[in-house]
Amino acid sequence: MERIEHRACFGGWQDVYRHASETLGCGMNIAVYLPPQAATQKLPVLYWLSGLTCTEQNFITKAGAQRYAAEHGIILVAPDTSPRGDDVADAEGYDLGKGAGFYVNATRAPWSTHYRMYDYVVSELPALIEAHFPASAARAISGHSMGGHGALIAALKNPGRYRSVSAFSPIVAPSQVPWGEKAFAAYLGDDRQAWKAWDATELVAAAPEKLPLLIDQGDADEFLASQLKPERLRDASAAAGHPLQLRLRPGYDHSYYFISSFIGEHIAHHAAALRSPARAYKEDASSKSV
Amino acid sequence: MERIEHRACFGGWQDVYRHASETLGCGMNIAVYLPPQAATQKLPVLYWLSGLTCTEQNFITKAGAQRYAAEHGIILVAPDTSPRGDDVADAEGYDLGKGAGFYVNATRAPWSTHYRMYDYVVSELPALIEAHFPASAARAISGHSMGGHGALIAALKNPGRYRSVSAFSPIVAPSQVPWGEKAFAAYLGDDRQAWKAWDATELVAAAPEKLPLLIDQGDADEFLASQLKPERLRDASAAAGHPLQLRLRPGYDHSYYFISSFIGEHIAHHAAALRSPARAYKEDASSKSV
Repeated sequence: MERIEHRACFGGWQDVYRHASETLGCGMNIAVYLPPQAATQKLPVLYWLSGLTCTEQNFITKAGAQRYAAEHGIILVAPDTSPRGDDVADAEGYDLGKGAGFYVNATRAPWSTHYRMYDYVVSELPALIEAHFPASAARAISGHSMGGHGALIAALKNPGRYRSVSAFSPIVAPSQVPWGEKAFAAYLGDDRQAWKAWDATELVAAAPEKLPLLIDQGDADEFLASQLKPERLRDASAAAGHPLQLRLRPGYDHSYYFISSFIGEHIAHHAAALRSPARAYKEDASSKSV
Repeated sequence: MERIEHRACFGGWQDVYRHASETLGCGMNIAVYLPPQAATQKLPVLYWLSGLTCTEQNFITKAGAQRYAAEHGIILVAPDTSPRGDDVADAEGYDLGKGAGFYVNATRAPWSTHYRMYDYVVSELPALIEAHFPASAARAISGHSMGGHGALIAALKNPGRYRSVSAFSPIVAPSQVPWGEKAFAAYLGDDRQAWKAWDATELVAAAPEKLPLLIDQGDADEFLASQLKPERLRDASAAAGHPLQLRLRPGYDHSYYFISSFIGEHIAHHAAALRSPARAYKEDASSKSV
């Protein structure tokens, strides 16, 4: 891993690293915020997954999360949103290809060569972080929009792997909205049955662990009715008895001004879970993907 | 004034307005953060002047200042850093012309036609804000780098106009460093005597009001030794008996990660001054430019 940025921030360090990802077959940038406490102890980690068009930079420059991470003693890790590089497949438009990995493992050409963001985020990335930084195995995950979808499916598919999960303005039912339909058709093919393994609204029905879902959603979000549809997850969670706190925030839109306003509450939520004893699901004993 | 952006943020609104500036002879964007208290009362205003290459966007997207403005009930106003438009003179390089107005009134062609950022920031902008928003006449001013220079000279040249002034990594002695020498030679001509009226280190010697200067400076700032030289202002302030608090921050650089780490302390500083009774200098009685 090569450190390519190193900036003092709230008493800690906002760094960016570059490494060769085995899972993705390309070089990847990872933003890592190390709070002051990391100088002397192992700390829990909050993984942040960004939305369409983003890189590892958006969250660290715009969310203002470092202040809260420094208060609570949590490492923040924000990867890029897709494989990158000249030999990585791409498409016209902002919602497919580079910057739009959708946190799935693609099964169709040309995407399947590099687009394995699910395995990258769930497996390679935490292993890398826990090997190279003062990071404990206590993990939380959150994200925005496409990244909110990524956080939800990562948690729902991997009981025991995360202590807590939250999302801002997530794509909760990608199989049922234009962004998800376009991406899933390309990455996974036309068989909609295969999409269900990557859709939070489908996964929540059979999730073996009842990890509570925390979601904030602005009611002035320009994508609310067309792409986000949080009521789909609300109904599915209610039917499954899966705990969900869905907070509609009056006046807020889809931007980082919304995220910055409530990221402090999310980090406090994750900090409480990360400080508590490990949950009943032990990864080594019963972890499996659904 | 036309509102071109309107985003909910920390219970208030992060807006951007566009207006035709009489002083500058061009259209200008102004970022205005209205905290929740602005819905029901007049509030004091903190003016923020950004640095080289910036627009009205950098501060509002990267500094995380809205949280503190909402806590303290302060309106934030961040103008662009130069006149803009196709008929506005420009130059090669990032440090002259558009994005580099240096908060002076240019006296030399072709710059003198539009480059009057000092009059714009000190006079037209506050008049506009106080006429169109729930803004009191209690003003504070701050800025970064070139904008820190702008904040310092605006306060030093206008006793009574600002209740408080602070700066991050300011260009304190523009007459003595490459950035300032290039800009002042273009905007003001070769007579260095004329530069003194726009240089904080010169102005502090004769400032009629001893408004305390608060400066934060990272000691890992890549421009510290070549362009910033805070010791020049420290020495001049000491000689003049002008109060200056200069805080060197170990490890911090010139970026918004530095600003975001300490903007909360600056806003608390300004809030205390803005809440206190008006100072002895009354603008209507004794304001004059030096």
